[in-house]
Amino acid sequence: MPELRKDPLIGRWVIIATDRAKRPMDFAASRDEPVPSGECPFCEGQESRTPKEIIAVRNGSSANQPGWKVRVVPSIKPVLRIEGELNRRAKGMYDVMDGVGAHEVIVETPQHIAHTADLPLEQIHLSLQATMQRIADLERDPRLRYALWFKNYGSVAGAGRVQHARSQLIATPVTPLRVKEELAGTRRYFEDKERCLVCDLISQEQEAGARVVMSTPHILVLCPFASRFPFELWIVPKRHSCDFQAMQPEEVADLAAVLKELLGRLKAVLNDPPYNALLHTAPFRQPRKTGYWKTIVDDYHWHIELIPRLTRVAGFEWGTGFYINPTPPEESAKYLREATVAATAGAH
Amino acid sequence: MPELRKDPLIGRWVIIATDRAKRPMDFAASRDEPVPSGECPFCEGQESRTPKEIIAVRNGSSANQPGWKVRVVPSIKPVLRIEGELNRRAKGMYDVMDGVGAHEVIVETPQHIAHTADLPLEQIHLSLQATMQRIADLERDPRLRYALWFKNYGSVAGAGRVQHARSQLIATPVTPLRVKEELAGTRRYFEDKERCLVCDLISQEQEAGARVVMSTPHILVLCPFASRFPFELWIVPKRHSCDFQAMQPEEVADLAAVLKELLGRLKAVLNDPPYNALLHTAPFRQPRKTGYWKTIVDDYHWHIELIPRLTRVAGFEWGTGFYINPTPPEESAKYLREATVAATAGAH
Repeated sequence: MPELRKDPLIGRWVIIATDRAKRPMDFAASRDEPVPSGECPFCEGQESRTPKEIIAVRNGSSANQPGWKVRVVPSIKPVLRIEGELNRRAKGMYDVMDGVGAHEVIVETPQHIAHTADLPLEQIHLSLQATMQRIADLERDPRLRYALWFKNYGSVAGAGRVQHARSQLIATPVTPLRVKEELAGTRRYFEDKERCLVCDLISQEQEAGARVVMSTPHILVLCPFASRFPFELWIVPKRHSCDFQAMQPEEVADLAAVLKELLGRLKAVLNDPPYNALLHTAPFRQPRKTGYWKTIVDDYHWHIELIPRLTRVAGFEWGTGFYINPTPPEESAKYLREATVAATAGAH
Repeated sequence: MPELRKDPLIGRWVIIATDRAKRPMDFAASRDEPVPSGECPFCEGQESRTPKEIIAVRNGSSANQPGWKVRVVPSIKPVLRIEGELNRRAKGMYDVMDGVGAHEVIVETPQHIAHTADLPLEQIHLSLQATMQRIADLERDPRLRYALWFKNYGSVAGAGRVQHARSQLIATPVTPLRVKEELAGTRRYFEDKERCLVCDLISQEQEAGARVVMSTPHILVLCPFASRFPFELWIVPKRHSCDFQAMQPEEVADLAAVLKELLGRLKAVLNDPPYNALLHTAPFRQPRKTGYWKTIVDDYHWHIELIPRLTRVAGFEWGTGFYINPTPPEESAKYLREATVAATAGAH
């Protein structure tokens, strides 16, 4: 059983994979050759290579058979297990619990296509809907507190050897430290001003314009003022909302189009860079003993962070949380704002 | 002038290099061929390739000439500038200040040797003494709040193309977020128990033994209970002290020997892995307006974090602060405890 352990200094939880430990020699060989499409577990026709699907978008075909558009399956190598109780306990001065949670893969296409920007818009749209549905469903499990949705593209970004467009969902029994810090920061601001910090930020950024990459009816894309990395991006809904899974149908459609266009520009401008995307959304608000989470709605605003992996994170950044960014966000925004997918794609 | 910008959500400061911006094409080419030793700016005889030295260990030779054992020079590419005032100001809702600070390189040897474990013990000892002296000196600058000492080894760990043993020191006008969080965590513990959290941790770890790698008269080396990474290490002084630069002579000598042995074991067990080392020490305590920092001494305990870079950090870890560690620290400690530098070195 994987174990969740809490750092006694700063309260960060870590998942320790106690039952499939990597030994020193396991790190030596870097095997980055891509898996051939015939062996890809996410391709249509290869359904038996994954655990049984949780949900799928199908037109009358049977579960776990070909004939689907989007498929959500449990991870082949889950970092948390869905069975069992949390078993919260102490080990001397330390806090521990069992690694209970969910780890799912959202397969965005039945075809062996690596980059989300290269998918038909409909596939991106259906994938977002499936993600929202899964988060809403996981929220009903009283053991779980948070859903981390993320996407790794390229081996530098941790995507592994299978080059098939997908994202992942990990539901955890604790709220991650970074999310807690954001919640605390936005709550302080709200208590002071009775306004949402991110709503204020959106209005200031739209007025300034220098860091705006795209602005559609429902979505704003910007390079954050204190970007840690070159070409770091925020994708923010213009309407105040704390929950990603509570998007309205027109917002989902808009977000799908924004993602396709933005990922296409990123691919064109930065020569197909590895990247990570991750969702910051409010923690689950199942009624708890304290009733506390129920009340947070006005002071948090969901958003997606998108980070091209262009620079190496060194000792300075590790552990100190202090970043050096060699490209001002105003420059990054300018390049991405002016890029056109078609024009630059032609130059390849 | 580089700019320090504060993230409005969580309060993290970021250095934005406004004056030497990297453009999209600058990230494309990865140039990892090592710099030939004849062109290494840190080798004896190449003193003119670096800015003028700040301090050096010399036996009567002239400054910036050959004939030295350890040399501290300003960074060739400083991320912060030593001249000027902070000029704290607002940009709309954001906080900004000028990028004032120090960025120095501690050159550990006049010879072109890459790995600290391969240096004579005396060189490591002299380098530690030079680092302590520089931190104590920088603490006198009232504009500065914190000294970050760190070491990058190997290109994956951000070391660049020059393979010459060295470490770096960046003094910042703000205390990094991660350090603040540690200070807050250890202070909470102290207020509750009137004991240092890390002193308690040392005594519990020595009793348990499973995560201990080395124990000398003054230093304990352990794999932390909630390790984020395989083979992550903490090097902790057994005597309670909040300031690295306040080490006693016998502690410095002991730490030098521990570093040589530990880095040698790491090199042997993990096949010369890239790694980062970084110091966590108390913020500078120059008398400030509030007089606040003056008082923190009982509730913080300096330590060095050492992180071999074996795994890739993916979307899950980025931004969430939630880590997945595939090697339990008890396993990591066992391998490093049982390793002998000579025996495994012979097997190469």
